[in-house]
Amino acid sequence: MINRLPIALTLGDPAGIGPELAAAAWRELRSTNQIFFWIGPASLIEGGVPVNRISAPAEADSVFAHALPVIDMPCHAPVVPGKPDPLNAVTTVASIELAVQFALSGEAGGVVTNPIAKHVLAQAGFPYPGHTEFLAALCRVPGREVMMLASPELKVVPVTIHVSLRHALDSLTSERIETVTRLTNAALKRDFGIASPRLAMAGLNPHAGEHGMMGTEEQTIIMPAVERLRSLGVNVSDPMPPDTMFSATARPHYDAAICMYHDQALIPLKTLDMAQGVNITLGLPIVRTSPDHGTAFDIASSVTSTAGRASASSLLAAIRIAIEMSQHRLGAKK
Amino acid sequence: MINRLPIALTLGDPAGIGPELAAAAWRELRSTNQIFFWIGPASLIEGGVPVNRISAPAEADSVFAHALPVIDMPCHAPVVPGKPDPLNAVTTVASIELAVQFALSGEAGGVVTNPIAKHVLAQAGFPYPGHTEFLAALCRVPGREVMMLASPELKVVPVTIHVSLRHALDSLTSERIETVTRLTNAALKRDFGIASPRLAMAGLNPHAGEHGMMGTEEQTIIMPAVERLRSLGVNVSDPMPPDTMFSATARPHYDAAICMYHDQALIPLKTLDMAQGVNITLGLPIVRTSPDHGTAFDIASSVTSTAGRASASSLLAAIRIAIEMSQHRLGAKK
Repeated sequence: MINRLPIALTLGDPAGIGPELAAAAWRELRSTNQIFFWIGPASLIEGGVPVNRISAPAEADSVFAHALPVIDMPCHAPVVPGKPDPLNAVTTVASIELAVQFALSGEAGGVVTNPIAKHVLAQAGFPYPGHTEFLAALCRVPGREVMMLASPELKVVPVTIHVSLRHALDSLTSERIETVTRLTNAALKRDFGIASPRLAMAGLNPHAGEHGMMGTEEQTIIMPAVERLRSLGVNVSDPMPPDTMFSATARPHYDAAICMYHDQALIPLKTLDMAQGVNITLGLPIVRTSPDHGTAFDIASSVTSTAGRASASSLLAAIRIAIEMSQHRLGAKK
Repeated sequence: MINRLPIALTLGDPAGIGPELAAAAWRELRSTNQIFFWIGPASLIEGGVPVNRISAPAEADSVFAHALPVIDMPCHAPVVPGKPDPLNAVTTVASIELAVQFALSGEAGGVVTNPIAKHVLAQAGFPYPGHTEFLAALCRVPGREVMMLASPELKVVPVTIHVSLRHALDSLTSERIETVTRLTNAALKRDFGIASPRLAMAGLNPHAGEHGMMGTEEQTIIMPAVERLRSLGVNVSDPMPPDTMFSATARPHYDAAICMYHDQALIPLKTLDMAQGVNITLGLPIVRTSPDHGTAFDIASSVTSTAGRASASSLLAAIRIAIEMSQHRLGAKK
């Protein structure tokens, strides 16, 4: 019986902080059983971190204690830290594709993605707005993806995401709230081992509308979804006043908060903890997490200059959560 | 030269936790020079707290160390904790009026208001939506009032307040942003002694619109206000991504954040600190603060039952900030 699978960590943009963070994460985890392998050019791993080229994920286990396991994959153009080159986009994309393939085949426990630069990939003709949509397409479940942000203190799931606040208001529907909440409920059970998830439903308006005096969407859009969810057995709250629901006294009473728009979810999460935020994609057949930061081209560096400025805390948290999720899935299969 | 004035604390709803909190605050502050007096029925002060009836604020100073100074004011109906009675609304209102009168005349350093119940006052014919509007009317500056919420870690000022999120979007104007920011800037100088206030301007949309890809209000409404404010010498940021601007690393870089809607301001404040939040009214000729909670009829009590469940932390913070503001104003007059 397999009860542990290595996590596939992607290259990300080779000119960003991804390679440096991969090395830093290995240093941190080398003496643990939190095992991952990296898919990218072995030559980019510097800072005295030993590399061991592997040809399949299964080899990572025996290698990990003494070297970073790498599935070697060349870049086409020279990699200059801080200077992204669209010529290398094909390697960035191939690393993601291979990681997903390993996760779908059951060779890897999940995929952790290093940051990519959307504008660099777009220049190279990459047709997706970001990682998440690309992963959903690779997994053949386009449109099912749901974003969860998690930190040690809080899990939030925004129902609407990267749209203007006005568009978020216009696109909020009972159906979307219901779909997102159902997927979140299922993921908390399957991926986090919570037998009976407790979900906090955010209101949209100040004081959750205060009986319609400050907005009616709680009554017309959110409550119908809540009632339908309850009829399906989902344990979800009435729409809660958004300003108090994330307080220290409120947070212990739920496992995740369903939020109506991007900043309602992201403000409390990042106000509490910028360093350990992890982006989790729910709704996919595979486990996928990522650090909640960008390529940081401004501090990406070769070892000889300012290396070490990038913090691996978010990537480490992403790897740890991916392992936790993977083990819950493996456990459920037993 | 007067360099210290007592703070006037109002009754609030006599059936709420106001009287209990007034007594608790005196216990906490009795041996300090943070002096206040209470305006309400002396008979409501229980729990073994000694009361000394005074007829003018100037008497509070010599009384405070050994008893709570009270400007005695009778209630018309019996006061039952937890059971508000509209017949006592006239006393609630008279307490506020007298406190404002003392502050306007320079006998009190400022007004701290205990919580009122809007629906109780409305039943008695009180025509204002809340304290703040009533105070602005008493001070003859209706419409100039601006709400600031302050905790030890963060000061926030919402540009729009108790309206639906959709209405907040519709009512957001450059003029309103400019007015609120100017008043905030002036208050930080006069009331908080900050010579060169640094103001963080929040964006409205995710990522502050990301160059117009997720909304354009940053460009069409907020930036024009920012530019005009800068031409007036106000030190204000470009519209900042709302999710990261309240993080622990960002907060030290500004003295107050100007926020576009209620929850953008209140979520970070209450997520960080529910206990010590203080509501401050800027734009008035007098200093006015209040605790950031309600009447709490559910836990209001007589001494013999469950007294002591209410926490005075927010009222204490409100009194302390009022004293700080008052002393800055007195110092500025020297």
